Amino acid sequence: MDIDIPEVKAEVEAAFARYETALVTNDVRVLDELFWESPTTVRFGTGENLFGAEEIAAFRAARSPVGLARTVLRSSVTTYGQDFATTSITFQRAGSAKIGRQQQSWVRLPEGWRVVAAHVSLIDPPNS
Amino acid sequence: MDIDIPEVKAEVEAAFARYETALVTNDVRVLDELFWESPTTVRFGTGENLFGAEEIAAFRAARSPVGLARTVLRSSVTTYGQDFATTSITFQRAGSAKIGRQQQSWVRLPEGWRVVAAHVSLIDPPNS
Repeated sequence: MDIDIPEVKAEVEAAFARYETALVTNDVRVLDELFWESPTTVRFGTGENLFGAEEIAAFRAARSPVGLARTVLRSSVTTYGQDFATTSITFQRAGSAKIGRQQQSWVRLPEGWRVVAAHVSLIDPPNS
Repeated sequence: MDIDIPEVKAEVEAAFARYETALVTNDVRVLDELFWESPTTVRFGTGENLFGAEEIAAFRAARSPVGLARTVLRSSVTTYGQDFATTSITFQRAGSAKIGRQQQSWVRLPEGWRVVAAHVSLIDPPNS
């Protein structure tokens, strides 16, 4: 199992950057595209637990587009072989002291790199 | 990419069950074993952000063994090909109304199935 093959990592970083832009601009079409269209896809959000692509898409469609901008504090992207990757970031939103954490699992599917599992949460700053 | 190949899924479910038992009994040796020994391994906990196996092991070693028991409410395990898997559970601890969410990415490495990324968080019950 080769870790962080440069070409694979570059592909995942590009997909991940595309996701981040879509998130902060609330580009629901791209967000829906990048989450795997499967009943097994899971997204744990800051206040909701969504099982399956249908629940995830319904949440996106209903979400307020206000206040989604964020500053990424730390980012870690790792690829495993040709077809699997994880991304982990910490972030902050303007006007909040909370620390956000986002972690995603990406799989290379026939349609491209897709998020198959994601978890976002907010905590008080560690060591505060 | 074959999803949920029965033999692969059985392997991951066995490793995942072993992790759950180790967690609730605070079996630090097994927990350390099942997290990939790598500087790229990430664990976002309910109050801490840990980057790398060293930080994760230090946290485990210092953790109070009290109150780790939990009831799993919902569990989703999905495998992708031969070597990758994600697990997502929701859970509750006795005496708390909070809903826990745990999500892990597993990779089949030469040493066995290992967690390469994990994220645990607590939220108020959705729809409460």
